[in-house]
Amino acid sequence: MERNLPIGVFDSGVGGLTVVKEIMNQLPQETIVYFGDTARVPYGDKSKETITAYSRQITRFLLSKKVKAVVVACNTASAYALETVQKGCPVPMLGVIKPGAKTAAASTKNGRIGVIGTEGTIRSGLYEEYLREISPKSRVFKKACPLFVPLVEEGWLDDEVTRQVSRRYLAELLEQQVDTIVLGCTHYPLLRKVIQETAGDAVTLVNPAYETACELREMLAERGWLNDGSSAPAHQFYVSDGAEKFRKFARSILPGDAATAEDIFLKVLTL
Amino acid sequence: MERNLPIGVFDSGVGGLTVVKEIMNQLPQETIVYFGDTARVPYGDKSKETITAYSRQITRFLLSKKVKAVVVACNTASAYALETVQKGCPVPMLGVIKPGAKTAAASTKNGRIGVIGTEGTIRSGLYEEYLREISPKSRVFKKACPLFVPLVEEGWLDDEVTRQVSRRYLAELLEQQVDTIVLGCTHYPLLRKVIQETAGDAVTLVNPAYETACELREMLAERGWLNDGSSAPAHQFYVSDGAEKFRKFARSILPGDAATAEDIFLKVLTL
Repeated sequence: MERNLPIGVFDSGVGGLTVVKEIMNQLPQETIVYFGDTARVPYGDKSKETITAYSRQITRFLLSKKVKAVVVACNTASAYALETVQKGCPVPMLGVIKPGAKTAAASTKNGRIGVIGTEGTIRSGLYEEYLREISPKSRVFKKACPLFVPLVEEGWLDDEVTRQVSRRYLAELLEQQVDTIVLGCTHYPLLRKVIQETAGDAVTLVNPAYETACELREMLAERGWLNDGSSAPAHQFYVSDGAEKFRKFARSILPGDAATAEDIFLKVLTL
Repeated sequence: MERNLPIGVFDSGVGGLTVVKEIMNQLPQETIVYFGDTARVPYGDKSKETITAYSRQITRFLLSKKVKAVVVACNTASAYALETVQKGCPVPMLGVIKPGAKTAAASTKNGRIGVIGTEGTIRSGLYEEYLREISPKSRVFKKACPLFVPLVEEGWLDDEVTRQVSRRYLAELLEQQVDTIVLGCTHYPLLRKVIQETAGDAVTLVNPAYETACELREMLAERGWLNDGSSAPAHQFYVSDGAEKFRKFARSILPGDAATAEDIFLKVLTL
């Protein structure tokens, strides 16, 4: 394996850029090839079969770009498709759910953990499954929050409507006295302020993106695959629709140079 | 043209069933072949190019089912794709926007018309374009309402959050003293109660589905293509994902037999 090959990252749309941001922070010498499936977004309420087919197709595309690893930045794809797709994949694949579960288990004091995410992520039950392995005594309470993504897309991040929706979605979890809530969808960190306000300061919000980047770094280090930094990274971003919207979002999320560059490599591609 | 051939209807998902319902009411002897693109839903915020490609693909599928006409039940596809796709189509195609504009023009007394819809439908400007032709003196005010579809999908039809969102979205239109509002998205009739409450009783809400079915009936009658009713209609429903969700929605929307039938013909199909 050539250590200077890029890392593939994919998501249903733009949300996975919150994971890319963490990877860029922790592994600034690595090159990213990103695919955002903006022509078929969202994944959250579609079936396991459909999400698996989409994920397989995108993984095949990333492999054609000679990536040394694939990060599934989307929670729904991590929940539904990772296990199946990685079987046929010649390079290591990482999802966001295992890292998210690990962080939640390390964070909780009372063993009561809340998980919020899309319908698919919640229905899959994968967060509980991992938490049962890591921390058998913890109890998991979960809630699908399908309006959070459209509220983020509408830009109502600090808004009375969003606060009301948040209160309604989190009510059951808070009644169960969770002390930790996993933000199990890449869009949710953008609602951190409102969610923290609803949950109260005693509750820790876990963003799986940070731990995912840590696991990626460890995995690459163990194998001696860390980029040697001999040349500057030349990231590539692919979307299946809506380049302008993506560019705007990328600028608001990605750090420094990647965000401000007018000429980020961005291509619209039909798989 | 064989008059007893079926009518093709397509939509981005389940919303187009509100149009199917009107067609079944007005043309009970016709057979419907429906395609709901639930694997790629929603269309509302995707690009013209992508929506045109999807619409062309679905029209090709419907033609393979030997339909005598194609109804584009989706406002976004009617706005973005109809004009292009019908050029290569050997059978007549009808959208929902022209009928919607016609009804709005007939309904307004003060010539001030509001249009609400998805981002794509509003951005296309097609409702104004038709209204300018039909009723050059009328003034059109428009507003994209991207949260309405997710609110319907969440089932919050008669809900305080929905009322608050509705008040915010409609505020500008109401300030402009519109006396008619076009429900320019097939999901919106399901929010009729809340929207009417927000707008007040003096405002007429226009659902393009009814007039679309009228135009379809007229078009078929003119050509002598009305089904002679010699055999009972055997509707076919195709979706690209999520058969169970579709079945549930179909039961809540479609009239009588079509709704209660456990054995409606429903098939999941990848185009």
